[in-house]
Amino acid sequence: MSIITGDKTFFKGIEQIQFEGRESKNPLAFRWYEADRVVAGKPMKDWLRFACAYWHSFNGDGSDPFGGRTHFFPWDESADPLLRAKDKMDAAFEFMTKVNLPFYCFHDVDLIDHTNDVAENEKRMAFITDYAKEKQAASGIELLWGTANLFSHVRYMNGAATNPDFHVLAHGGAQVKSALDATIKLGGSNYVFWGGREGYMTLLNTDMKREQEHLAKFLHVAKDYARAQGFTGTFLIEPKPCEPTKHQYDYDAATVIGFLEHFGLQNDFKLNLEVNHATLAGHTFQHEVQVAAQAGLLGSMDANRGDYQNGWDTDQFPTNVNELAETMLILLEAGGLNKGGINFDAKIRRNSTDPADLFYAHIGGMDTFARALIVADDILQHSDYKKLRQERYASYDSGAGADFEAGKLDLVALRDYAAANGEPKMTSGQQELYENIINQYI
Amino acid sequence: MSIITGDKTFFKGIEQIQFEGRESKNPLAFRWYEADRVVAGKPMKDWLRFACAYWHSFNGDGSDPFGGRTHFFPWDESADPLLRAKDKMDAAFEFMTKVNLPFYCFHDVDLIDHTNDVAENEKRMAFITDYAKEKQAASGIELLWGTANLFSHVRYMNGAATNPDFHVLAHGGAQVKSALDATIKLGGSNYVFWGGREGYMTLLNTDMKREQEHLAKFLHVAKDYARAQGFTGTFLIEPKPCEPTKHQYDYDAATVIGFLEHFGLQNDFKLNLEVNHATLAGHTFQHEVQVAAQAGLLGSMDANRGDYQNGWDTDQFPTNVNELAETMLILLEAGGLNKGGINFDAKIRRNSTDPADLFYAHIGGMDTFARALIVADDILQHSDYKKLRQERYASYDSGAGADFEAGKLDLVALRDYAAANGEPKMTSGQQELYENIINQYI
Amino acid sequence: MSIITGDKTFFKGIEQIQFEGRESKNPLAFRWYEADRVVAGKPMKDWLRFACAYWHSFNGDGSDPFGGRTHFFPWDESADPLLRAKDKMDAAFEFMTKVNLPFYCFHDVDLIDHTNDVAENEKRMAFITDYAKEKQAASGIELLWGTANLFSHVRYMNGAATNPDFHVLAHGGAQVKSALDATIKLGGSNYVFWGGREGYMTLLNTDMKREQEHLAKFLHVAKDYARAQGFTGTFLIEPKPCEPTKHQYDYDAATVIGFLEHFGLQNDFKLNLEVNHATLAGHTFQHEVQVAAQAGLLGSMDANRGDYQNGWDTDQFPTNVNELAETMLILLEAGGLNKGGINFDAKIRRNSTDPADLFYAHIGGMDTFARALIVADDILQHSDYKKLRQERYASYDSGAGADFEAGKLDLVALRDYAAANGEPKMTSGQQELYENIINQYI
Amino acid sequence: MSIITGDKTFFKGIEQIQFEGRESKNPLAFRWYEADRVVAGKPMKDWLRFACAYWHSFNGDGSDPFGGRTHFFPWDESADPLLRAKDKMDAAFEFMTKVNLPFYCFHDVDLIDHTNDVAENEKRMAFITDYAKEKQAASGIELLWGTANLFSHVRYMNGAATNPDFHVLAHGGAQVKSALDATIKLGGSNYVFWGGREGYMTLLNTDMKREQEHLAKFLHVAKDYARAQGFTGTFLIEPKPCEPTKHQYDYDAATVIGFLEHFGLQNDFKLNLEVNHATLAGHTFQHEVQVAAQAGLLGSMDANRGDYQNGWDTDQFPTNVNELAETMLILLEAGGLNKGGINFDAKIRRNSTDPADLFYAHIGGMDTFARALIVADDILQHSDYKKLRQERYASYDSGAGADFEAGKLDLVALRDYAAANGEPKMTSGQQELYENIINQYI
Ligand SMILES: [Co+2]
Ligand SMILES: [Co+2]
Ligand SMILES: [Co+2]
Ligand SMILES: [Co+2]
Ligand SMILES: [Co+2]
Ligand SMILES: [Co+2]
Ligand SMILES: [Co+2]
Ligand SMILES: [Co+2]
Repeated sequence: MSIITGDKTFFKGIEQIQFEGRESKNPLAFRWYEADRVVAGKPMKDWLRFACAYWHSFNGDGSDPFGGRTHFFPWDESADPLLRAKDKMDAAFEFMTKVNLPFYCFHDVDLIDHTNDVAENEKRMAFITDYAKEKQAASGIELLWGTANLFSHVRYMNGAATNPDFHVLAHGGAQVKSALDATIKLGGSNYVFWGGREGYMTLLNTDMKREQEHLAKFLHVAKDYARAQGFTGTFLIEPKPCEPTKHQYDYDAATVIGFLEHFGLQNDFKLNLEVNHATLAGHTFQHEVQVAAQAGLLGSMDANRGDYQNGWDTDQFPTNVNELAETMLILLEAGGLNKGGINFDAKIRRNSTDPADLFYAHIGGMDTFARALIVADDILQHSDYKKLRQERYASYDSGAGADFEAGKLDLVALRDYAAANGEPKMTSGQQELYENIINQYI
Repeated sequence: MSIITGDKTFFKGIEQIQFEGRESKNPLAFRWYEADRVVAGKPMKDWLRFACAYWHSFNGDGSDPFGGRTHFFPWDESADPLLRAKDKMDAAFEFMTKVNLPFYCFHDVDLIDHTNDVAENEKRMAFITDYAKEKQAASGIELLWGTANLFSHVRYMNGAATNPDFHVLAHGGAQVKSALDATIKLGGSNYVFWGGREGYMTLLNTDMKREQEHLAKFLHVAKDYARAQGFTGTFLIEPKPCEPTKHQYDYDAATVIGFLEHFGLQNDFKLNLEVNHATLAGHTFQHEVQVAAQAGLLGSMDANRGDYQNGWDTDQFPTNVNELAETMLILLEAGGLNKGGINFDAKIRRNSTDPADLFYAHIGGMDTFARALIVADDILQHSDYKKLRQERYASYDSGAGADFEAGKLDLVALRDYAAANGEPKMTSGQQELYENIINQYI
Repeated sequence: MSIITGDKTFFKGIEQIQFEGRESKNPLAFRWYEADRVVAGKPMKDWLRFACAYWHSFNGDGSDPFGGRTHFFPWDESADPLLRAKDKMDAAFEFMTKVNLPFYCFHDVDLIDHTNDVAENEKRMAFITDYAKEKQAASGIELLWGTANLFSHVRYMNGAATNPDFHVLAHGGAQVKSALDATIKLGGSNYVFWGGREGYMTLLNTDMKREQEHLAKFLHVAKDYARAQGFTGTFLIEPKPCEPTKHQYDYDAATVIGFLEHFGLQNDFKLNLEVNHATLAGHTFQHEVQVAAQAGLLGSMDANRGDYQNGWDTDQFPTNVNELAETMLILLEAGGLNKGGINFDAKIRRNSTDPADLFYAHIGGMDTFARALIVADDILQHSDYKKLRQERYASYDSGAGADFEAGKLDLVALRDYAAANGEPKMTSGQQELYENIINQYI
Repeated sequence: MSIITGDKTFFKGIEQIQFEGRESKNPLAFRWYEADRVVAGKPMKDWLRFACAYWHSFNGDGSDPFGGRTHFFPWDESADPLLRAKDKMDAAFEFMTKVNLPFYCFHDVDLIDHTNDVAENEKRMAFITDYAKEKQAASGIELLWGTANLFSHVRYMNGAATNPDFHVLAHGGAQVKSALDATIKLGGSNYVFWGGREGYMTLLNTDMKREQEHLAKFLHVAKDYARAQGFTGTFLIEPKPCEPTKHQYDYDAATVIGFLEHFGLQNDFKLNLEVNHATLAGHTFQHEVQVAAQAGLLGSMDANRGDYQNGWDTDQFPTNVNELAETMLILLEAGGLNKGGINFDAKIRRNSTDPADLFYAHIGGMDTFARALIVADDILQHSDYKKLRQERYASYDSGAGADFEAGKLDLVALRDYAAANGEPKMTSGQQELYENIINQYI
């Protein structure tokens, strides 16, 4: 990948990040991520399909509920919203080519400032996607997914597709149409829905059933439109249990899968799973990935990590090797993400105000995932892990157990088997042995 | 209800608990629960259908992970397991008739000690259910539900229906068959499955997909058997996110509903929701009840409360009027529990060692539910609560909103509506007003 | 209290809120708060000393981490910061006199916009406090406490008194000096420190010992200055475990008390306890109040409530009668708050956008506290609560127990007492009975 | 260390665990723990001082609140309590010598069954400590600490030193005296207090102030006795926020330190910190270690790990390299644990029922700590970590910052410094860089 800048260089003094290997002490080098290294039969980059998140990296200004902006961007200075959008895009592609990120993701409003005028917004999106198309062509970077931000504007304070006011829902529709058009134009592999305000602040004022039916209908309508425009990619729902609302409808993987199946959306929609959202819902990320994978609905990943002592979405860059190695075990066994990818939905800390911090953060995240992939592959290739697990279930591979799986035993047959065979022998779950295997390969 | 004792009186000095009204200072009287008082068109007792949980009240010995037994029961003294079982049942019916509980619930092993011999266990169950039948007839108390304990015996340490060893699953089948037979014999309204060990201790050693398929098949087989025996009641699944395992499959209402629909069980199975399990899963109890109610799958309730600062199932007796008043609002709007009921799956504290404590606890719980029912009915009858909520959704009752609900609008139509109509007006969610209404009626 | 407006009326159509009693259905009336009703020997208003929080009610714009402003204030429209500040103050005093709040609280930057120029800020503060003095005189409203906001400005992103850069600490000092001057000028009863950024984002880059020593020195220096200016009020520390930082130093009541005693600050400083901060730290509010009260360090209260399912500071208006009745029990037994008060550090929800919502919220909060006070007093006057608790400890009131308390028994004496007296009798903790008493009086 | 067995061999087929290095695939070998390898100037074993916890490994029977015993021990079979105690001790020393654990820890009741007779218990303790003395001499294994179990017996259900009944407190005294005698006799380095029942189940029935004063007096009395007997070791308090009670008094490190200082115990008492207790209290383990270290009160460690999704004390064996590497950084900078050690207060899972599981678990734990020690030492020796952190505080090393630290600047001087020097420059906290350094050395 060659570095692509616009008229200005925004990240001066930082060159393209290179792989320098395990022992390098250069903080601006990869120690694990080697894009073309073949792991489990294909290059790392094809397993990982890393994407840059436009919002956190190029719009996120460091503000939090207790304080204002701390990140001041040189690409955010022009008074003209169109020029500002181009500058930002130049910065983004400079950054992505420097850090070797082959994909990106955006919300409509990340790309360019929106107004309250639907037609004007569509014009602006046309303008900036023309430019994006050029930048994609020049760099080879692709669009992993697009989405519409249906949560930041004041009009969505009571929800978008689940708003009690149809007028607001219609605006959501307008934005989704525009974001779908942009995604299709830019060859996006997927289109994401994250329902940050689709839920309730208090159940007391909420007709949950009606709201969820509206949401399902909205998704159908959006899907039908996109398919009619020739979009062949995957639609993705991103679960999150709460924040900003008290309770969101897309709580976790199991809840969303139940919803998709109930409303007949499971053939077009899959899941975009985020690490921090898993833990906020009381699950490990591994659990969420397994739930989606076994339903055939694992679409894509938002890479980050939460803080186990803080109860909100801290969206920190991923650094937890154990968590990700166990995730990669599941991913490798499931055959990978297909057209999905790993999007860094992560933000540098509010007080990380050096331009280099954004590089450190992505390098750390990419290295952690690369290392996790290697570790997981090693475990599958060189340890007893898989065999140990399969053998636990051997009793169902033949005999009465296989008959049970085949539906040949009724309750009386089970009772008779138990009565005839006495107490089962105790079989250790050997959890500590499994855990040691993981650490052995880290 | 007249007091039914056996040969001995186990709760000496405590007579039948009477309704004495709001101002009574008698700790052994009801201040709110008046069984025959008509609320929302039928007697309180028919809305509430209170049940006594055999396990906590007559088996629970006060032990916890850091200390042994503190509750020593006079009905637990006979050396003969059959006599001991009868004494316990005498105590239970004495208690229930004294505290005016019209239903009870049990696990197989609560009723009578089990052995490792399937046939012997069936004999013991036959013996004690004969006796239970007599006691039911004498007292008028009915069986709300029966269940099999598939989590306490050592053989279930790796799961029952999800055990990697088919041999263990078969034992689970034997117990369920016996517990179904008992439930049918005693005219139980429902039969419950709580999968305390159906889940995993570590995902590393677990084939989650295969385990969940086994669970579904097991439920089908059990249901088919019971239906063949003429059981017309409802099967219930009781969700709980974790504890005893690291993660249980029946995580919460939405997860279980998705599972039931996925495996074609939704016409026979409903949910038995427990307050403390809701909060352990990150939901309010109100949320869980709403989720089940709108799916038409609200079956029954396990009444208790958790501790918001302690992360395990404390199963305390319910005392939270706000929590239950909001729950009763949903219940009243959903038309009630039908053949379900409110089972006190709650235990007096380890250091509550006076015989009277069990009475205080049930009186407090019954009064809190009764009060909550009255409050909720008042709100629905006398406040603007319902009207306020309905009016929030008025835009879908006619015009474009109604067209959207009817499936007449596509994405382009939504976009055009938004473009044509400009920004929506802001509408307050009025959360504080709704909250004040609740407190106004408490 | 008569209504005090400025040139404009900001809350049109809402008159002064009146006490109308338990049965009133007027959403703009008190049903419990009757300022002059005597409870436990003095008027309600003297127990409760309610205060309005300037920031949430007059600056809080409804933005959250996922969306921008939703509250648009008519007092926020002037282009001139001084006029804007006066308009805001007019709105605040109009609101407070309409809702009958006898106290208010502010951060320096709530009153008037600050610049980066220390001297200019001091001038602005002098200007607006002149005006505040007039408004106080006209209305009779008093200042409960002032404070300096040392967390919102970008310069504090790494802390204020605990910033690794002394230069930033000095700016904190400048702001505290100015806020102390303002508090003294306006006759404030207390001065508060809330260390929102005093803590760490990661322990890895933190010299915690040195930072805490800086904090202690900073507090000493501030106290010495204020005392030299004649301030006789109480300094208050407000504990909070986390948010905005990963971990704050003033974690909870016990941590702050240990800190104050360790650094010799306990004679001048007390605690300002907030409900939501207690629960974020894993405590009930009652616990925190008890910890402070028994140390003689209970200063004041920030009234609000958290959401038990959401892990951040939701700062909702208080509505939980049980929580506050139990708190008021402790408060009444401790003799009250003295010169402290109950400050509504609570915000209406982001989607509560009607002007009336701010009234509903405060009415609900004031009524809940008033009710809690009445309930607690009833319990102390009319129930066995106090007696039951005292009798639990009777063994220490005489005999060997009293000798132990008096320091007359050594370990051998304890051992000999145990050996001589055999096993103690079991004594029930009677938790359910105590809980029923609380609900009986609600 | 040579293997020390009694008459029987309890762990047949498992020989002494050897260090085989990073690449070994032998599950019964160390890959990191090399006792005599010198790290940071002394052998690993002297930094780590690993101890075996008698209770979890030799008494813990696998029961949990939902099921009974799963661990059946061959050393638990004799009908004679004295013989059973000797068999258990033989098993313990066999295990410890096989796994190379140089220390152990016990509660009185772990060593030998206790009765309700004080004198009989003392005799039993004399008997088993005679035997322990022999085993220690034969093996070279030492006692890290002893303690008395004041939480399991029914008499402690309302507390021990904080029991409302003095009679119970006296029994606590008898047990502590006996456990102190045993600890002194066996040359224990420390004596621990863990107050599992010292707290409350409900604040409603609790006089917290009086209970805490009793606790302080009890600790003084115990300390005075031990010192009079010549004990020169350290007394340790082990914080834990809750479980088994709703709220324990020894909540966390800061709370305990405040308590010790308030009651004048800080010269004799230090802290025994447990990983899982830190996280239950809302802290990282690193935080707790730092808090203790900077107070000079870091005594010893209970090694384990919690489950971030489960809210109770899971006491799993430590496997988290990141968590422990960051802890070891603090430990190395603080100079180590002195006479403290690292005690595996961890239990194999309920379903880990193979004899080898106990070995896997300890090997994994010891390897994780050894690796963490090496990583931390590498970071301190070879990275910029220390320098980066020190330079953050450079402004306090000279000039006005140093004057502030020296107490030479008052509030007006701070204000003047700020006014004179304008806005400070922004300085990144560089969190992501620090985090990458940690992972670089893992
Ligand atoms: Co995301
Ligand atoms: Co997130
Ligand atoms: Co239950
Ligand atoms: Co429960
Ligand atoms: Co506050
Ligand atoms: Co707050
Ligand atoms: Co411990
Ligand atoms: Co523990």
